[in-house]
Amino acid sequence: MELTREAAEALDREDPLAGFRDRFTGDGLLYLDGNSLGRLPVETPAEVARVVEQEWGRGLVGSWSSWIEVATRIGDALAAGVLGARPGEVLVADSTSVNLYKLLVAGADARPGRDVLVCSADDFPTDRYIVDGVAAARGLTVRSLAADIDEGLDPASLAAALDERVAVVVLSAVAYRSGWLADIPAITRQVHEAGALVLWDLSHAAGAVPVELAAADADLAVGCTYKYLNGGPGAPAFLYVRGDLQEQLRQPIWGWFGQRDQFAMGPDYDPVPGIERFGVGTPPVLGMAAVEVGVRLAAEAGIERLAAKGRALTELIVALADEWLAPHGVVLASPRDPARRGSHVTLAHPRAWQITQALIDRGVVPDYRTPDRVRLGPAPLYTPFADVWDAMARFRDLLAEGAHERYPAERSRVT
Amino acid sequence: MELTREAAEALDREDPLAGFRDRFTGDGLLYLDGNSLGRLPVETPAEVARVVEQEWGRGLVGSWSSWIEVATRIGDALAAGVLGARPGEVLVADSTSVNLYKLLVAGADARPGRDVLVCSADDFPTDRYIVDGVAAARGLTVRSLAADIDEGLDPASLAAALDERVAVVVLSAVAYRSGWLADIPAITRQVHEAGALVLWDLSHAAGAVPVELAAADADLAVGCTYKYLNGGPGAPAFLYVRGDLQEQLRQPIWGWFGQRDQFAMGPDYDPVPGIERFGVGTPPVLGMAAVEVGVRLAAEAGIERLAAKGRALTELIVALADEWLAPHGVVLASPRDPARRGSHVTLAHPRAWQITQALIDRGVVPDYRTPDRVRLGPAPLYTPFADVWDAMARFRDLLAEGAHERYPAERSRVT
Repeated sequence: MELTREAAEALDREDPLAGFRDRFTGDGLLYLDGNSLGRLPVETPAEVARVVEQEWGRGLVGSWSSWIEVATRIGDALAAGVLGARPGEVLVADSTSVNLYKLLVAGADARPGRDVLVCSADDFPTDRYIVDGVAAARGLTVRSLAADIDEGLDPASLAAALDERVAVVVLSAVAYRSGWLADIPAITRQVHEAGALVLWDLSHAAGAVPVELAAADADLAVGCTYKYLNGGPGAPAFLYVRGDLQEQLRQPIWGWFGQRDQFAMGPDYDPVPGIERFGVGTPPVLGMAAVEVGVRLAAEAGIERLAAKGRALTELIVALADEWLAPHGVVLASPRDPARRGSHVTLAHPRAWQITQALIDRGVVPDYRTPDRVRLGPAPLYTPFADVWDAMARFRDLLAEGAHERYPAERSRVT
Repeated sequence: MELTREAAEALDREDPLAGFRDRFTGDGLLYLDGNSLGRLPVETPAEVARVVEQEWGRGLVGSWSSWIEVATRIGDALAAGVLGARPGEVLVADSTSVNLYKLLVAGADARPGRDVLVCSADDFPTDRYIVDGVAAARGLTVRSLAADIDEGLDPASLAAALDERVAVVVLSAVAYRSGWLADIPAITRQVHEAGALVLWDLSHAAGAVPVELAAADADLAVGCTYKYLNGGPGAPAFLYVRGDLQEQLRQPIWGWFGQRDQFAMGPDYDPVPGIERFGVGTPPVLGMAAVEVGVRLAAEAGIERLAAKGRALTELIVALADEWLAPHGVVLASPRDPARRGSHVTLAHPRAWQITQALIDRGVVPDYRTPDRVRLGPAPLYTPFADVWDAMARFRDLLAEGAHERYPAERSRVT
C-alpha cells in the first residue's frame, strides 16, 4: 500500500469489520494493547448487570439451572466460533495458569515412563514456571527449546528435543513477545511422531488467528479470554482436550465440579466422562457473563476476517516502522513474514521503557516488554487503520523530539 | 422465648443488625439459603458497573495500578473484619477447591517423611475428593475420621487418627450438612501436638461465626465468599497462611502472580516471600468487585453480632421444628447445643426432597442435602426473625396438608 493517511482511511472504509468499532467503548485513546487487555464491548455492562441483578439478585439459587452449564455453553461457542474445535471439547474455567497446570499433569500422567517435559526458553513466564514446578514435583527433566526472542522457536531445536523420553511439549501458538506464529498442524504432527502430547497455550492466538484445533489433531490447549476475546480483566480462561483423549486423562485437582452427579455428593471422586472432568470449583458466574459477550463478538466477526485484518494492521506498523522509526534506531523484533506473525508487532529500542511512558502521555497505549521492547497489539476487531497511522506518527514525532529522554529509565513494577 | 409471631417481630425490632436488611435486595421470598448463595447487596450492582465501565472500559490497562493489589486488599479486609487474622495473611484468589489443593500440597511438602492425610468422612465432597486426589498422586494414605452426619466429628476418632505419620488434617469449621461447629483452637492445638498442620475449610463459617485464626494459631485455611460473605455466584475464594509459615511453604502451581517482580519475567520461578506466593494467575477483577462489597458489609456488621443473631435465628428454627414439625416426623439433624452450631440447621424427613420442592413453590427457599435433609440457612446479616417464623409456618402447613406428596420423589441433578 501507499504510505499515506488517506490510504489508511481507505482501508478503514473497505474494512469488512468496520461495523464492530462502534460495538466497543472508545475514548480517543490510540489503544494498541488489545493483546494485553481487550476493550470493553458496548453490550457487556448490560449483560453483566442482568446477571448480577436478575440472575443473582432475583433468581438466587434458582439460577443454577442456567449457571450449571455456563462453562460448557461458552466453551462450545468458543470451540465452534474461534478455536475450530468440536462441541464438548472446550471448557471455560479457572485461570490460564491453573488450566495449564491441570492439563500438563494430566498429560504427563498419560505418558507413564516418559520423564521429559519440553517448553520454549522464551515462552511466557507462567508457562515456563508451571512446567518447572510440575517437573520439580515429579522428578522430571525439562528440555528448554532455543528460541530467538525476535523470530521465535528454532525448528531444529524442537526436532532435536523430541525423542521417546518426552511426555508433553508446551508451546505458545503466538509468542507473547515477538508475535511469532507457530505452525500448529506441523508441530503437532512432529510431536505426535515422537509419541508425545502437545499442549498449546493460545492466549495470544485465540481471537486473532485461526488455530483450527480439530484439523490439526491438537491434543490439549489452554488460553485466556481477556486479550483478543475481550472478556475483561482476569476473565475466566479456557481449556481444550481433544474428545478421544478425555476419558484417558485425569487432572490432579479433584474438585466437585468434575464429579459425576455432583449433588449426590458420593463418597468417591468419579469424574464425568466429558470435558467437565477438567473443571474444579464453582464457575465464576459474573466473569463468565462478560466472556460470553466477548466470545460471541469474535465468533460473529469470523476468525478468518480477524486474522486478515490483523495481518493488514501489523503490515502497516511494519511499513511505518521501517520508514519512520528505523532512522531513530528502532528495530523490528517480530518475524517480517506476516504469515508467521500473530496480531502484534514488537519493536526494539534501547530506551523502550521511556518510549512506552512517552507514548502513553501522548495518548497511545502500547506495552513494554523486557528487555527493550515496545509491543504494539492492534486488535483487529476494533482498531482502525487510521489509529495505527496516528499512533505511529506520534511515535515518530516523540523520537524526533527526543521527548522520551525526559522519562525515568527505571522500570516500574507494574506493567 | 415465647413462640408467637409477635415475639419474632419483637426480636426484629431489637435486632442490632436490622439496618442491614435494606442493604440487600429482597423480593418477598422467604430465603433460607444464604449458606448456599448469599443475597445481592444493594451496593453491588453499582460497584460492579463502576469496575466494568470505569476501570475496565475507560482505565483499560492503566487500571492495573489498582488491580495488582486487589487480592491482598480484600484479603486484608477479610483478615481484619471477618477471620481474626493478621494483615498479609489472607489472599483472595481462585476457587475454594483450587486453594485447598494448593495449601494441602504445600502443607504435605512441609512435613516430609509423614505419609498420612486426615479428613472427615462426612466433609464436603470437594474437600474429600481433593484430599483423595493429592493422596493418590503422592502415594499417601488417607485416614477418614468418623463423623455423625447429624452431630459432627467424633472427637475420639480425631484423637485416634493423630500420630507421627500425619502431615495435614483437613477439616471444615462448620459442617456443610449438620452445621456442626468445630472447636477451632482445641483441634488446632491437638493437631499441633501431633506435629501436623491443620487446614481449615471455612466456607460455611466465614461471616457466620468467629473463627479467630490468629488466636487459634491456625496454620492454613481456605473458604468461599459466596455464602455468608455475599460475593456472588462462583465468587473468588480466599486462602489464609499464618505469617510465620509463609516462607516455608511453596504451593505447586507456579504461576506468574506468585513471582517476585513478575514483570521482569525472569527465567526462574522465585516466589515473593509473602501471601502473594499462594496466588497463581491474573486476579478475576469483576468477581473481586462484588466480593469487596460483601466483605465490607460483613465486617461492618461485626462477626460477634452476626454469630449472636445466627444463634438466635437457628434457636427459633429448632424450637418451631420441635413444636410444629416433629409431630409430622421431622427430626433435628444438627447439634442441639447452639454453641456447637454454625448458622444453619438441618432437618431430616424421609420425604425431604419433595418437601424442598413444595417449600419452594410456597415461597420458601431452603436447600436439599442427601440423603433426606432439608437445610435451613437463615443468614444473620439480612434475615428477619419474622421470615423464619413464616417459613416454618408454611413448612408446618404443607406437612399437615400432605402437599409435598404430590411432588416427584426423584431428585433432579441440579441442586
